[in-house]
Amino acid sequence: MSIKIELHICKTSKDRASGPAWSTADKKRKAVVWGCAHFQIIQGLHMRQLEEQCAENIFMAPRYAPSLRSRLAPLLLFLQLGFIVIYAFYTEIQSGVKVDGKTLSNIYPVFQDVNVMVILGFGFLGTFLVRYSFSASAFNLLVAVMATQWAIILNGIEPYNRKIRLDLRSLVDAEMCTASALISIGAVLGKTNPVHLILISLLEVFGFILNKWVIQTLLGTLPLNSIMLLHIFGAFFGLTLTWVLYRKGSEQRFEKEKSDRKTGLFSMLGTLFIWMFWPSFNSILVDDRIPVRKLEAVCSTYLALAVSAVTAAAVSLLSSPKGKLNLTHMQSCILAGGVAVGVSISVVHQPWEAMIIGFIAAVVSTIGHRYLKIHMLLAFQCHDTCAVLSTHGLPGLLGWLAHLILLIKDCDDHTTAIRFAVFHICTLLSTIALSLSMGLITGLLLKWNFLRPPQDRKCFDDQAFWEFPHVTLCK
Amino acid sequence: MSIKIELHICKTSKDRASGPAWSTADKKRKAVVWGCAHFQIIQGLHMRQLEEQCAENIFMAPRYAPSLRSRLAPLLLFLQLGFIVIYAFYTEIQSGVKVDGKTLSNIYPVFQDVNVMVILGFGFLGTFLVRYSFSASAFNLLVAVMATQWAIILNGIEPYNRKIRLDLRSLVDAEMCTASALISIGAVLGKTNPVHLILISLLEVFGFILNKWVIQTLLGTLPLNSIMLLHIFGAFFGLTLTWVLYRKGSEQRFEKEKSDRKTGLFSMLGTLFIWMFWPSFNSILVDDRIPVRKLEAVCSTYLALAVSAVTAAAVSLLSSPKGKLNLTHMQSCILAGGVAVGVSISVVHQPWEAMIIGFIAAVVSTIGHRYLKIHMLLAFQCHDTCAVLSTHGLPGLLGWLAHLILLIKDCDDHTTAIRFAVFHICTLLSTIALSLSMGLITGLLLKWNFLRPPQDRKCFDDQAFWEFPHVTLCK
Amino acid sequence: MSIKIELHICKTSKDRASGPAWSTADKKRKAVVWGCAHFQIIQGLHMRQLEEQCAENIFMAPRYAPSLRSRLAPLLLFLQLGFIVIYAFYTEIQSGVKVDGKTLSNIYPVFQDVNVMVILGFGFLGTFLVRYSFSASAFNLLVAVMATQWAIILNGIEPYNRKIRLDLRSLVDAEMCTASALISIGAVLGKTNPVHLILISLLEVFGFILNKWVIQTLLGTLPLNSIMLLHIFGAFFGLTLTWVLYRKGSEQRFEKEKSDRKTGLFSMLGTLFIWMFWPSFNSILVDDRIPVRKLEAVCSTYLALAVSAVTAAAVSLLSSPKGKLNLTHMQSCILAGGVAVGVSISVVHQPWEAMIIGFIAAVVSTIGHRYLKIHMLLAFQCHDTCAVLSTHGLPGLLGWLAHLILLIKDCDDHTTAIRFAVFHICTLLSTIALSLSMGLITGLLLKWNFLRPPQDRKCFDDQAFWEFPHVTLCK
Repeated sequence: MSIKIELHICKTSKDRASGPAWSTADKKRKAVVWGCAHFQIIQGLHMRQLEEQCAENIFMAPRYAPSLRSRLAPLLLFLQLGFIVIYAFYTEIQSGVKVDGKTLSNIYPVFQDVNVMVILGFGFLGTFLVRYSFSASAFNLLVAVMATQWAIILNGIEPYNRKIRLDLRSLVDAEMCTASALISIGAVLGKTNPVHLILISLLEVFGFILNKWVIQTLLGTLPLNSIMLLHIFGAFFGLTLTWVLYRKGSEQRFEKEKSDRKTGLFSMLGTLFIWMFWPSFNSILVDDRIPVRKLEAVCSTYLALAVSAVTAAAVSLLSSPKGKLNLTHMQSCILAGGVAVGVSISVVHQPWEAMIIGFIAAVVSTIGHRYLKIHMLLAFQCHDTCAVLSTHGLPGLLGWLAHLILLIKDCDDHTTAIRFAVFHICTLLSTIALSLSMGLITGLLLKWNFLRPPQDRKCFDDQAFWEFPHVTLCK
Repeated sequence: MSIKIELHICKTSKDRASGPAWSTADKKRKAVVWGCAHFQIIQGLHMRQLEEQCAENIFMAPRYAPSLRSRLAPLLLFLQLGFIVIYAFYTEIQSGVKVDGKTLSNIYPVFQDVNVMVILGFGFLGTFLVRYSFSASAFNLLVAVMATQWAIILNGIEPYNRKIRLDLRSLVDAEMCTASALISIGAVLGKTNPVHLILISLLEVFGFILNKWVIQTLLGTLPLNSIMLLHIFGAFFGLTLTWVLYRKGSEQRFEKEKSDRKTGLFSMLGTLFIWMFWPSFNSILVDDRIPVRKLEAVCSTYLALAVSAVTAAAVSLLSSPKGKLNLTHMQSCILAGGVAVGVSISVVHQPWEAMIIGFIAAVVSTIGHRYLKIHMLLAFQCHDTCAVLSTHGLPGLLGWLAHLILLIKDCDDHTTAIRFAVFHICTLLSTIALSLSMGLITGLLLKWNFLRPPQDRKCFDDQAFWEFPHVTLCK
Repeated sequence: MSIKIELHICKTSKDRASGPAWSTADKKRKAVVWGCAHFQIIQGLHMRQLEEQCAENIFMAPRYAPSLRSRLAPLLLFLQLGFIVIYAFYTEIQSGVKVDGKTLSNIYPVFQDVNVMVILGFGFLGTFLVRYSFSASAFNLLVAVMATQWAIILNGIEPYNRKIRLDLRSLVDAEMCTASALISIGAVLGKTNPVHLILISLLEVFGFILNKWVIQTLLGTLPLNSIMLLHIFGAFFGLTLTWVLYRKGSEQRFEKEKSDRKTGLFSMLGTLFIWMFWPSFNSILVDDRIPVRKLEAVCSTYLALAVSAVTAAAVSLLSSPKGKLNLTHMQSCILAGGVAVGVSISVVHQPWEAMIIGFIAAVVSTIGHRYLKIHMLLAFQCHDTCAVLSTHGLPGLLGWLAHLILLIKDCDDHTTAIRFAVFHICTLLSTIALSLSMGLITGLLLKWNFLRPPQDRKCFDDQAFWEFPHVTLCK
């Protein structure tokens, strides 16, 4: 039976290749060709899909995606058992001053908001790829839990303390570091396998925490400010990575790099969760000894996000030749205000400051999305799947600039202002230098063939990693 | 190639139009017609869809939806920049008595619940339309953030205070006003463009806050009671609007006004978020100086919603000729209890009162959904997309009635009871009068052709507003 | 017209049945058969689906699913009105010591997390079945609200108190009991009608609360420990039930028991909500007089879940012949750590204890999923739709064992240890005995034909219970 299928398909393909066969003598065959032509018209995509699948299933069986059993499973088990051993000997749950009942119940709901952003928000944000939605959501979970465990350990290492502190605050700090890894992963989404993703997240989190330590120790940056640089670090790390891992032929769109209505809606769901809970993300680390600071952080972030949403829609319309909106812009650029205000959260006190930052961030992000993404690919060979440069990189830089300007504005004398500015610029330079170099190192490591990167044909495809036992064939 | 496609399609259509052509002489053609007949049977919908799409793509290119670039983008930018200027000069974040740390962390999680309801709940509730899900979720976000910024300004205008207060409470108040605008929009969903939606929301919020001010100032209604009339105001505003904007031929269902399995499930998601967080919506404005009041509000709303869900299912079954459930009823009518109890929340003290209100509300709402929606369309030319009359209007009126009855029951003497009743009736009359007149004014404004309303063929269609660059053609 | 359709379909089916008809004399017919053969290849599934649907629509009209109007609607109305009467006379909202403002705002966000898990999480977890997603989400809501109202009544019956207490704590307790009923329902999902589901949930909740009362009164188990046995009780109740309700021919997969990409993603959404909010589920009942206990519960659950997610992925890969992940494992087995740590939450104090429990639980659960599920079906005639044995049963037993071991480890002398162990074993025996016997009784009741069980052909099919008025035919 299967042989017959091959025959027919070959015939059809040949027919199509040789163009419309109106002059064929044999009448019966003519009718069939008629039928075939008809089919081509009516079936359209269906036919092509079927051929693709038949080709995959029948002819090209040897070109399966390489199995990850001997790579991913040992890596996961090794790391996980290692983490358990470290946690067994070096962590303790601390019932310190800040861990009284009141603080726990105050911080817990906000912690859950951040948790929802990291696990659900980032996970579903990546589901827009039509054949990669399982991977996007499940690998995000996998990477997030590995990176969080790793970040708790790295954050907890202190010279004078043998034990690593474990409480809600350390979980929150770790999830923030994880968020920076998840941003990086957005740039290489679909073109890597889970082994890559785990390694990327571990190295990224290491680099980010190293940078945090450097700028806190050497430059005296406040913890809140240093952790909020996660957007800049994550974006530039991801960009370097995707530049090193560039695949020839990426200028033509990958075969399966496309979205559809339903996956676009799943992605919208992830975006909305990130959008809604961003005030929690920006305010959770704000010192609550001055209560109004927390309120300012919440209101500023909310207003900046609101302005971003409106501005992104307007700029998306203005820059579209047909005067239509683009769903990708409504999914990424509405978050730009949250990024920019987050980076400058410790100096934003007035609502209008946040609103102006949100406005400029959304303009920059939407224009970057529309024109810069394709330019990065063609000119710099930098294939940025989720456009992290426009979504996190540029708004992050803008937030840094806003921080600098507001800082200088608040200074009374020139000397202090210049001193602040120098420190602030050094912070950025350190962050970018470390993110680029760590990205380079990680990228070179990932080029190692031992890790079995997916073939170009299997990029953006769940079938390389997932069993589809009960799924109907031609859906 | 494209010309050939046209030919074939025409032929096929003609064939179909002239009925089964069994008597055709030419054998080859007969076989083809056989094939075509076969196709018609087997392809069914696919063929019709293809023809539709071909028709749209090839023949009817000039009948594109009108571009919104020159309308929507300037409107959004003008309004947003205007809001930024107003916020810059007239708002301040207030660290008043109520904004101490404790209150912030108490109210913040409940605020986030309301935020989820407004942004995610209402947005995904409207995604049931099979080709309108992008618009439903994204325009909801756009409208919500515009309306919230506008409502903060209008709510904050006070005679003795130059500055507009900005804290979590004012955000919550503003989101409640936004909810009333989103209810109105439910009635005209799919038949309007985003320019319309923005104008509707601004005018609706203006009308709602005007009504709130009138009944608070002239009739002495409590803020909680006045804001909970949002369901009645929103529903009647939306109904008037859709009556004014009636399109000929709406009695026949619009071409694209239908749902499918997947979009029905997205809509269920939105509904469940609204259902789950409704106790937050009803209790957030309840005065927390008497702690048990808040608990009563939470428990009452929870029980009323539970009773609603059960009753809506039972009534949906009883009223179905085939004895089957209707997903639309399970999505809208299970919320009726929350609406009715919300309107009467300040006088409901016993759980059974809430349960009886929830029971009657669900019965009224389900029967309204089953019979009234089509009657409104045929008899009153009122095409109510999301059935806001049955979901918010009737349960809201029922809640108002329950409020009146419970108020009178609690009174000791007749004089007070009558006085209360008169004030309560005046409140309703004012709300309905203002909602109808504002709806009328808004509707007349929106009939202005300058705003480029979508053609009938483009109603309920994302393609009028969204770029679909990477979407496969015939999905 | 419809007769012609029948003819064609029959012809096609016959043709196919008689094999490729290459030797037919008639040329025209040959061409047609060619066409048909072609169709068979290209149409693949579409054809078969169409025939199925035609068969359903034309030939087998009398084999409609039995209407539930005369069963479900009276049952729902009777129960709901009964509940309202009971609530009217026997409940009161209590403003006791624990219901002061502070406690309410502390517990409320955690209550909402549990509410989201029960209503949204369990509801969407079951939507993976491709034609049963409406039923899975909506019946879950229906069952949850009935079971919660029922559990509040049963939990509130106290010998010395005429009135049933109603506050947030009693709502939380009731939702926990509901969760055990929802676990049971996972085992029979798709093979029962809503009347069955309501009866199952009422009897399961009755059995669970009876067991809770027995072990609290006779064995002195703490309320926290007794309620956390919900996973074991629910799983074994459901297994007995599905064993009693076994349908012949279940060894062959039911016709509609399959998932696809989109429904798999909806199911992932439900899973993630359960995963994210599980720390709330495990910590909400922990006594907060010692604040560090609550923090321990949160951190332990979080770490156990993280370890579970990683381990489930690794074991899923190792046990797959092709070295691929299985989405079902990533949806169910990542929760195993939460189950196991939940059952032993009162004695888990160190993070590494929780991590080891999570590790073993995920290994057991994934292996159970891969090998035990099919074995249970073939050897014990136990068709377990959602694999509740592997997801809740085995991890629950493991948690019970961990509880025992940690309890003994903490004891100083042998006598106390043995005494504890005996009590702990009796607790398990009582739970399993009651769950099996209640499951048996419920199963026998449900075999009653009066309740109109769905036919085998209508299993896992929304069309038996839902109106599909506007859905396109052949989607």
